[in-house]
Amino acid sequence: MASDNRRIVLAARPKGKPTDSDFRLETGPVPEPGPGQALLRTLFLSLDPYMRGRMSDAKSYAAPVAVDGVMEAEVVAQVAASRVDGLNEGDIVLSRSGWQDYALTDGKGARKVDTGELPLSTALGVLGMPGMTAYTGLLTIGKPKPGETIVVAAASGPVGATVGQIGKVKGCRVVGIAGSAEKCAFVKDELGFDAAVDHRSPTFAEELADAVPDGIDVYFENVGGKVFEAVLPLLNPFARIPVCGLVAQYNATEFPGAVPVPVLMRQALSKRLHIQGFLVFDFNAQEDDFRRDVGQWVREGKIRYREDVVDGLENAPRAFQGLLEGKNFGKLVIRVADRT
Amino acid sequence: MASDNRRIVLAARPKGKPTDSDFRLETGPVPEPGPGQALLRTLFLSLDPYMRGRMSDAKSYAAPVAVDGVMEAEVVAQVAASRVDGLNEGDIVLSRSGWQDYALTDGKGARKVDTGELPLSTALGVLGMPGMTAYTGLLTIGKPKPGETIVVAAASGPVGATVGQIGKVKGCRVVGIAGSAEKCAFVKDELGFDAAVDHRSPTFAEELADAVPDGIDVYFENVGGKVFEAVLPLLNPFARIPVCGLVAQYNATEFPGAVPVPVLMRQALSKRLHIQGFLVFDFNAQEDDFRRDVGQWVREGKIRYREDVVDGLENAPRAFQGLLEGKNFGKLVIRVADRT
Repeated sequence: MASDNRRIVLAARPKGKPTDSDFRLETGPVPEPGPGQALLRTLFLSLDPYMRGRMSDAKSYAAPVAVDGVMEAEVVAQVAASRVDGLNEGDIVLSRSGWQDYALTDGKGARKVDTGELPLSTALGVLGMPGMTAYTGLLTIGKPKPGETIVVAAASGPVGATVGQIGKVKGCRVVGIAGSAEKCAFVKDELGFDAAVDHRSPTFAEELADAVPDGIDVYFENVGGKVFEAVLPLLNPFARIPVCGLVAQYNATEFPGAVPVPVLMRQALSKRLHIQGFLVFDFNAQEDDFRRDVGQWVREGKIRYREDVVDGLENAPRAFQGLLEGKNFGKLVIRVADRT
Repeated sequence: MASDNRRIVLAARPKGKPTDSDFRLETGPVPEPGPGQALLRTLFLSLDPYMRGRMSDAKSYAAPVAVDGVMEAEVVAQVAASRVDGLNEGDIVLSRSGWQDYALTDGKGARKVDTGELPLSTALGVLGMPGMTAYTGLLTIGKPKPGETIVVAAASGPVGATVGQIGKVKGCRVVGIAGSAEKCAFVKDELGFDAAVDHRSPTFAEELADAVPDGIDVYFENVGGKVFEAVLPLLNPFARIPVCGLVAQYNATEFPGAVPVPVLMRQALSKRLHIQGFLVFDFNAQEDDFRRDVGQWVREGKIRYREDVVDGLENAPRAFQGLLEGKNFGKLVIRVADRT
């Protein structure tokens, strides 16, 4: 066991894009578990767009990370020492340990995971929070019907990829939006979407329109900004828009040239749009259904996934900055340590 | 019976606010019913904000009125002559006859109405389309729970007044927004809302905030524009926003200074807002429930209503222009002729 605990803390609240100086790597002693505590050793650290929100102190659904506090994250960890009933050394758990090598738990926030024949990292991706986000948001708010057209942005990411593939399971036409020709090819050829459109293309709006000859019935929103503006005129009457994320907006401080709200509301009225924001933990009651269905679809090969694994806790800040710009390709995880 | 049929046609598509020159009064012969037709004589003509949309050829859920075509409207009419089985001279019906003294029907679009002890005009108001709009939008999308706070704009109008009073029946705190001190007093003192705020006040946003100490759980949207911007920061997590109308926007051609869509979407996400446009005829299946419930509440005095009756078909264009500026006070109807 290493004798040091490395942790990455929020050094400053970013203005716009996070930079290296907004993070700081600190080293301290590995904590000792007291009675009723266990020591968790991080194996895989999940990096997700929502973390940008936690770096800001704007009012939100969750408290922000404190300046000088450890960055928040869900991790796959191994129990290194335990004084908690039911947790044994060597157990693999999910925990919100944050961006650090080691963390203590009282056991309540540590849940044993078993990914079967799949890599442990999938507990942070297709079989974890991103997969459940896709499943619950698409089915509960999007309510896709066979033959309808679903559009999803960030389509090569863990949420978008799962949304689209569940859409195919449900008998829909599925169009993905992604940020490079390579990602578009992956979405179409590997994930089986019906079409994919590159939002960096100068003719993006026209290409998107061409890809949805029957309009859009479900737009799964996880980027916002200009992509949404291209989607808006293509929405069909009674279209549903689960609002899951807005990664293209997270670094923005203002929105020059954006469509004004009254124009959106006019569309909402005349087309009877259903726009609804959600967070995955609003749907915790669906977790068993998610595990059963998505677990089966993955085993059957109906849902495929791609991971972008970066080695080393110290590389998390740079990897996270890249995530907000779409530089990752697949679910971004940091491999912090190997299972013993 | 008069020998002439007066009708008001769309002379030109308005740019911004409709003006007198956008309408034209024409006079022609009263049509003769052929086999399978009945002649309807208009008694009351309903004027409603949605008609502004029909004057425009912007893409919408309904076809626009043609230039030189008779302005559309629902009316209460009396059968003046009938060659339709089941329709008899003297019957009172609802029909989309438009802005004219007489119209022919094949009987399919004419439905007999009985308002009991209430004036016939209520078939165009609290017991008609506006009342059903309020009932279906509030209960189906707004889903108010006892103790929650509902805010409704245009609160002295037929939709807003009914929304608020149904809210009181459902055990909610109800705050109305209206356009004058007199309207606010009516909403509070006559309709029994808990509070009313004048949107023309220079301190409107602050007054609205003061009136909703526990935030807003349901905002029934029928005005849009600046009122919505004042509501937005006051919405609670999981707030529902049935979008019924946007009368404050109908004459606008652009929206300088309006909040951009990305700001709204950020709110939608972090607060998990549910924004949904609807049209009353999406909920036709609820018509029996509406008639039963609202009919009962009106009889019990739990729902009160106010009408703004203007005499004379020739005054419809001016009355309609005033409606779009909030000059009416209560449900605006034109009394075209008396029942015989």
